[in-house]
Amino acid sequence: MNEWHIAEGYRFAGVISKLRNEPDRRDLAVIVSDRPAAAAGVFTQNRVCAAPVQISRERLPRSDARAIVICSGNANACTGEQGLADARRMAELVAEGIGCSPEQVLVASTGVIGRPLPMAILEAGIPKATAALQSGAYAFNDAAHAILTTDTRIKVSTRRSLAGSITGFAKGAAMIGPNMATMLGFIMTDAAVAADDLQAILRRCIADTFNCISVEGHTSTNDTVLILANGTGPSVSGSGLVEFEDAVHVVCADLARAIAEDAEGANHLITIHVEGCRTDAEARTIAKAIAESALVKTAVFGADPNWGRVVSAAGYCGVDFDERDLSLGMGSFLLYERGVPLPFDAKSASAYLRDNRNVDFRVTLELGSGHCTFFTCDLTTEYVNLNADYTT
Amino acid sequence: MNEWHIAEGYRFAGVISKLRNEPDRRDLAVIVSDRPAAAAGVFTQNRVCAAPVQISRERLPRSDARAIVICSGNANACTGEQGLADARRMAELVAEGIGCSPEQVLVASTGVIGRPLPMAILEAGIPKATAALQSGAYAFNDAAHAILTTDTRIKVSTRRSLAGSITGFAKGAAMIGPNMATMLGFIMTDAAVAADDLQAILRRCIADTFNCISVEGHTSTNDTVLILANGTGPSVSGSGLVEFEDAVHVVCADLARAIAEDAEGANHLITIHVEGCRTDAEARTIAKAIAESALVKTAVFGADPNWGRVVSAAGYCGVDFDERDLSLGMGSFLLYERGVPLPFDAKSASAYLRDNRNVDFRVTLELGSGHCTFFTCDLTTEYVNLNADYTT
Repeated sequence: MNEWHIAEGYRFAGVISKLRNEPDRRDLAVIVSDRPAAAAGVFTQNRVCAAPVQISRERLPRSDARAIVICSGNANACTGEQGLADARRMAELVAEGIGCSPEQVLVASTGVIGRPLPMAILEAGIPKATAALQSGAYAFNDAAHAILTTDTRIKVSTRRSLAGSITGFAKGAAMIGPNMATMLGFIMTDAAVAADDLQAILRRCIADTFNCISVEGHTSTNDTVLILANGTGPSVSGSGLVEFEDAVHVVCADLARAIAEDAEGANHLITIHVEGCRTDAEARTIAKAIAESALVKTAVFGADPNWGRVVSAAGYCGVDFDERDLSLGMGSFLLYERGVPLPFDAKSASAYLRDNRNVDFRVTLELGSGHCTFFTCDLTTEYVNLNADYTT
Repeated sequence: MNEWHIAEGYRFAGVISKLRNEPDRRDLAVIVSDRPAAAAGVFTQNRVCAAPVQISRERLPRSDARAIVICSGNANACTGEQGLADARRMAELVAEGIGCSPEQVLVASTGVIGRPLPMAILEAGIPKATAALQSGAYAFNDAAHAILTTDTRIKVSTRRSLAGSITGFAKGAAMIGPNMATMLGFIMTDAAVAADDLQAILRRCIADTFNCISVEGHTSTNDTVLILANGTGPSVSGSGLVEFEDAVHVVCADLARAIAEDAEGANHLITIHVEGCRTDAEARTIAKAIAESALVKTAVFGADPNWGRVVSAAGYCGVDFDERDLSLGMGSFLLYERGVPLPFDAKSASAYLRDNRNVDFRVTLELGSGHCTFFTCDLTTEYVNLNADYTT
């Protein structure tokens, strides 16, 4: 593994609780800050939100968080009062293990919706996890594995700055819509940052990172990004906060991009740049419509440089523009300029899509300086097969 | 074929012009009203709209339309000034063939975006079509075939009412988003209805028919529904207009449903009923989010009664509700009631999805009387393969 900058003053565990019914699979993670940490979070905008989201949301922001517990395989969503009690119990078990109050523990879950948590497994598993807590890269790696579902690999991003180390990990794979994907992200820093600053920084960093990715546009019930700042390292304020925010932003961007890149069944990471709009919000609306068009995504899967689908997706998203203001590039190809299709070598354009795992489209309007970069993936037969047969 | 009620005073042709490069495939249709007809139309809301849409839109509503010409295989979209000239020339060729002014002819196209029309083929093909015009079911059947693209069958609906016969045909298959699908629909009646009444009736009928279907939510550049009323039959006004509108509505609903049923690669027609909302518009927003969720659609393909995906799609569409106000049924199964998952026999529920080509979900809220019925299809590996390799 690459060298990771693990924030100081944190311990991690990722254990096999058998929640997932797969004997060798880590499925339960715990993150502990040795001292009380400022904590902030951003959660799904879905009206139907999972029990752990409800519990964690009501506990944040706060200045004395001690731990996060995450289980994968069961989302604890749509599980009513029992689900809330179970999420609270998860926190309580961690609190007992590390010696703090349950309110200092945050909870996240991902997996199948609508099944009660198998609490007997967690009653045994969580003490096992708190007993396994360790600092350093190996334990961190275990935790990063334990939160995965259909992800094929861990997503990690770490940065060192004057404001301290920032260490993040995430999971994605599917049910990824912007406005927070079905994704979980956890960011730890040893910087000392006040909880309110942390909340504002996280919200700003998410706007153009985790909220600018989409697999199929389905916003999950469990989306959660949490950040802890435990102050083991330097105290951050004033202009230091700007540098700190830049580093958090890079970590969020890395993780968001990694989620789109490892989406279920994906063969391609598709980057959509939109520029020249009246506002950034309009640019995002156009980018999102292109990113979520099944026709654009299947064309990339088939290495078909079908630019008409990209242009028409921009056209139906509700942003007002004239066709003559729109140009479209793909890689080094200019396909469409100010409303006019250009001749291009279809064979080379198809080869560009076939031979590159990372491909990009660039939509340019001439209305202003609003812009957005959005990540998505192609729509493959493997995605369909994976999702046709998920719960059974 | 079933007995069709073909409106009086119309002739049809559907010929093989070789626009499609398939030697035996009809690809060019002409509809002629023997006398000047009131005509109205509703078109795509895409900002990028094809040349024939621009030409037909500027000619409607009018009281003296004589003909519609439709080519399939080439959308004549994103083709600039040349595309507009070509669409006008198509109308002119029909006008020369039947003896009227070019402005009395409407134009529609469907197929690949961004390729210039092969006008030499149409210069020969359109006179061949106008020479082949005939009344009756056989010529009508030829025309209904000639507008298809990846459709597997023709879509026809006819009704006889006191207000005259109403005869419609349509094409769909993919790039079907609501706000007019990539679909073309043509409705002929021998009733005598004023052009302005016709326009208002068509707009109302489309709202809960053609605008309540989705294949993948991609609104095309070419969507067109045209209606002609030539007054060969009875004159309609007052309460007769209500009966007439009812019959037009039934024809639109039949055609819209047929489009969703024959969507590209589809194994299932999925009907989504949403009721108990504050307004019909909110019900449609919920229904549309469910209909366009790739996760809901792959679950149906896989016969997986994954109700969590349906509930969570309702949750992210932006309509404000509390989870405890939501119930969900599927066929005869009640899966989720007022925020609580119910036990159900997973094997039977899966068999329901596997063994029925037509399946339905019923979402019930408790906020008012707003409702919507929306049609979509499952997302299959065949859809992905068809659309990965469309232009090449």
